[in-house]
Amino acid sequence: MTALDDLSVRPSVTTGPITGSHKVYRDVDGLAVPFRRVDLSNGEHLDLYDTSGPYTDTNATIDVHSGLNRLRADWIARREPVNGAVTQLAYAKAGIVTDEMRFVAAREGLDAEFVRHEVAIGRAVIPVNRNHPEVEPAIIGKKFLVKVNANIGNSAVSSSIEDEVDKLVWATRWGADTVMDLSTGKRIHETREWIVRNSPVPIGTVPIYQALEKVNGDPADLTWEIYRDTVIEQCEQGVDYMTVHAGVLLRYVPLTARRITGIVSRGGSIMAAWCLAHHRESFLYTNFVELCEILRAYDVTFSLGDGLRPGSIADANDEAQFAELRTLGELTHIAREHDVQVMIEGPGHVPMHKIAENVRLEEELCGEAPFYTLGPLATDIAPAYDHITSAIGAAQIGWAGTAMLCYVTPKEHLGLPNRDDVKTGVITYKIAAHSADLAKGHPHAQEWDDALSRARFEFRWTDQFNLSLDPDTARSYHDETLPAEPAKTAHFCSMCGPKFCSMRITQDVRAYAEKHGLSTVAAIEAGLEEMSERFHEHGDRVYLPITERATE
Amino acid sequence: MTALDDLSVRPSVTTGPITGSHKVYRDVDGLAVPFRRVDLSNGEHLDLYDTSGPYTDTNATIDVHSGLNRLRADWIARREPVNGAVTQLAYAKAGIVTDEMRFVAAREGLDAEFVRHEVAIGRAVIPVNRNHPEVEPAIIGKKFLVKVNANIGNSAVSSSIEDEVDKLVWATRWGADTVMDLSTGKRIHETREWIVRNSPVPIGTVPIYQALEKVNGDPADLTWEIYRDTVIEQCEQGVDYMTVHAGVLLRYVPLTARRITGIVSRGGSIMAAWCLAHHRESFLYTNFVELCEILRAYDVTFSLGDGLRPGSIADANDEAQFAELRTLGELTHIAREHDVQVMIEGPGHVPMHKIAENVRLEEELCGEAPFYTLGPLATDIAPAYDHITSAIGAAQIGWAGTAMLCYVTPKEHLGLPNRDDVKTGVITYKIAAHSADLAKGHPHAQEWDDALSRARFEFRWTDQFNLSLDPDTARSYHDETLPAEPAKTAHFCSMCGPKFCSMRITQDVRAYAEKHGLSTVAAIEAGLEEMSERFHEHGDRVYLPITERATE
Repeated sequence: MTALDDLSVRPSVTTGPITGSHKVYRDVDGLAVPFRRVDLSNGEHLDLYDTSGPYTDTNATIDVHSGLNRLRADWIARREPVNGAVTQLAYAKAGIVTDEMRFVAAREGLDAEFVRHEVAIGRAVIPVNRNHPEVEPAIIGKKFLVKVNANIGNSAVSSSIEDEVDKLVWATRWGADTVMDLSTGKRIHETREWIVRNSPVPIGTVPIYQALEKVNGDPADLTWEIYRDTVIEQCEQGVDYMTVHAGVLLRYVPLTARRITGIVSRGGSIMAAWCLAHHRESFLYTNFVELCEILRAYDVTFSLGDGLRPGSIADANDEAQFAELRTLGELTHIAREHDVQVMIEGPGHVPMHKIAENVRLEEELCGEAPFYTLGPLATDIAPAYDHITSAIGAAQIGWAGTAMLCYVTPKEHLGLPNRDDVKTGVITYKIAAHSADLAKGHPHAQEWDDALSRARFEFRWTDQFNLSLDPDTARSYHDETLPAEPAKTAHFCSMCGPKFCSMRITQDVRAYAEKHGLSTVAAIEAGLEEMSERFHEHGDRVYLPITERATE
Repeated sequence: MTALDDLSVRPSVTTGPITGSHKVYRDVDGLAVPFRRVDLSNGEHLDLYDTSGPYTDTNATIDVHSGLNRLRADWIARREPVNGAVTQLAYAKAGIVTDEMRFVAAREGLDAEFVRHEVAIGRAVIPVNRNHPEVEPAIIGKKFLVKVNANIGNSAVSSSIEDEVDKLVWATRWGADTVMDLSTGKRIHETREWIVRNSPVPIGTVPIYQALEKVNGDPADLTWEIYRDTVIEQCEQGVDYMTVHAGVLLRYVPLTARRITGIVSRGGSIMAAWCLAHHRESFLYTNFVELCEILRAYDVTFSLGDGLRPGSIADANDEAQFAELRTLGELTHIAREHDVQVMIEGPGHVPMHKIAENVRLEEELCGEAPFYTLGPLATDIAPAYDHITSAIGAAQIGWAGTAMLCYVTPKEHLGLPNRDDVKTGVITYKIAAHSADLAKGHPHAQEWDDALSRARFEFRWTDQFNLSLDPDTARSYHDETLPAEPAKTAHFCSMCGPKFCSMRITQDVRAYAEKHGLSTVAAIEAGLEEMSERFHEHGDRVYLPITERATE
């Protein structure tokens, strides 16, 4: 009996499309690649990257006790190892374009050979455990859309399996590209089984949490063997990437003693405690090669954890943080030699002027391995609003080259996120990621902004709602002041009222020009010529010469 | 009878201190300078910049029908004009340090002579109408704390005088440094009277809105005389700064015709419509010198409006926007010649990679006049979350040198903000402003972050709540999962539970060191020496030499 056969566990998940859109699949050389299509009232449509899996497909049958369809089973079955390995990195290095690479290329609107190249040089990863065939592959790398991770998981004081499965589906519905299960409470194994089998996105974990649970919470009692067996257990289940705090070396721990907030990473502090208790170097570091061999067998991706990341503005970019980063760079190269894909985790809490330096150093030390940062929070003064303090930092670090942003919810530092917090966190981070995509100049990013802006300017209210990241909330805010249905097509809104609407006036400007039988520009310029002459006659000194006009 | 004598208007405003703090006044050479003092459980305290006026002072008597105490009446009465002018700029140029300059210097923790210098060269403004003696002066300039403006005001479809007075007090309670009354509905004059008389912060307006109301909403019927009289009416009332869209010239209008969102500024579109209807140059531009003379008589500050600001990502940094900015630069120099203080308004909607260019150009063209921007929104795809899309841009543009940020609420583009939206908007923008202060290196900014981070690390939960921008919400989020009072002093929280708390483990690390009779660093390094030797004996190639350790 597997965990999913336990009928006493009754997860209830949200299904059906997001308001105003529906699932479509594009056939790309035999692959069915999912998109979320928003149909517009002017007959056009916009297809958006879609992380929500079958849950938003009205034609799909969802049964959480069976898990999702095993999309990749055939892809995995029909290929042979290359150079003794089955990882995307090994295939990429060998010049092989996998189905996963073709799938992510189609999702991003890019070339599959380009995807292969980025994976081969380690600048991108596709976290896809062979034992997680249900996953719809996604690529994480600076040349691609910035991705968002949502953390879920129970703790000793709160939550249930039902809650966590619900949060998984809910997070991917709103755009989470990966989900980390950070459970530290009861039934960790079963909870994870439910999550992996029902997840359309890659799942990440921090195995040291479960290992610590096995020794009843005392870091000193941890051993390499217990940890290793935990990693293998999670690899077998299908976890796609694992956070490993192998860079917390004994000699770095003193560097944190004078910090304002010491060590704030759970994994980092567990390993620091172990090192101090035994006066020995971290077993994650000394056994790193064996760990590579385990992860390679499943194609599990390393997410090398920043156990010494700063926990406050005061501690940002200090010697402890960067010492660990140098070690992560060393480990990155070892992992790549073993054909294991690698991401690097980053801070945390960093003021804006110190953000770019984090990316520059990470790329230099870690051979451009995809950077995966937690925020960072740009200030410490706003508990309850840390989704916002961190979105400010996240947008910037994404622009600077970070490949994936770990979301922060309003409950950060205060409590475990509930369902609403998960949605707020994901949407806030989609904003940060998309802002970064625009700034990086991703070739397709601005199409979305332009579609929404056109709808706004043309008073297509329903299109404006449906094109937004959260159609339901956008519509409800509008309806608070102008609930009547005709207002959805009214050429004004409650901000200005019917008389003062600036957009209506601009449209009047265009109409005025048309009435005079001229194009807008020509009509206005005709008037302008006249005006200009008159001004010149008057010798008005502040009127700029006609030659300074823009040439349109 | 003044508007405040109308007893049928019964505003109810929020009074009393913010949770966990109380009003203090520091005596600075006879001036009573207000601060919000947060008392901490360890006997320390932190004094924060305080915009809330007497409303948070338990010793103050608040009567909205009388208006606030006339703090500046004596300051104004006892000084003579200098070179025929009574403006802060004129005094600053003449080498005179006014009481207002001393007051703002004390609030910012800076030198009064430095304040005078920044005002004299036009790099900072202190918007204080002689007829608004109730205001507690604040300074707006890149060398000072980044300020936040909150927009309030009724519209033709919504709101009342009571609502607007409540929003004024509510906005300043949470940190709004100035408030703009953008009313366009009924009883504009009376609403403004209530706002000005009860406002402890500078009040801004856009006079063209009221002028348009006087001609029943048809821009073509506007005249210079109607506009001029409206400006004088508002100057008499005590408005501290006014948005004037004098840079929307006839010849710039065609530059907007091919935009995705045309002209989105209300003032800009009104002036564009007038120019087109009459085929004449803007009366704001042709009468600008007379306008300077009016504003100078009251010491009202210009906020030169960006009527052609972009309304979408697609339209950012285009020729229409920058053509207008060049004209605003020209007008800035004319205003300064007349001893009138000037700010420059900025966008709007700008992707991150185009933000810095806005500040650079504004400083170059407008002689470093304080920049005052609306956001900007870094993406268009998230109506209902535009406080966040714009906080991302606001933090960055603040870091780049913008002096004041106009808030954006969750209702932007959708409806008029209610009380909750005002609070969310203000707090979001305090986050952006403070993040910018940290990045700019304001000498006192980080004290706040450090105080909160210390409280967090030492599990002083109540101090952490009280030091946050919104103590009530921070506490309520914490209490959702750990409501019991003992949890306020518990050495863990609901995220990790009692066993896994990383901060507790770090504290254990320190305790461990102390138990061994050594300082933390020495204790760990003692173990490290031993470890290091052992590793060297084993010839472990990946262990870095001891010389690479940080020197602490």
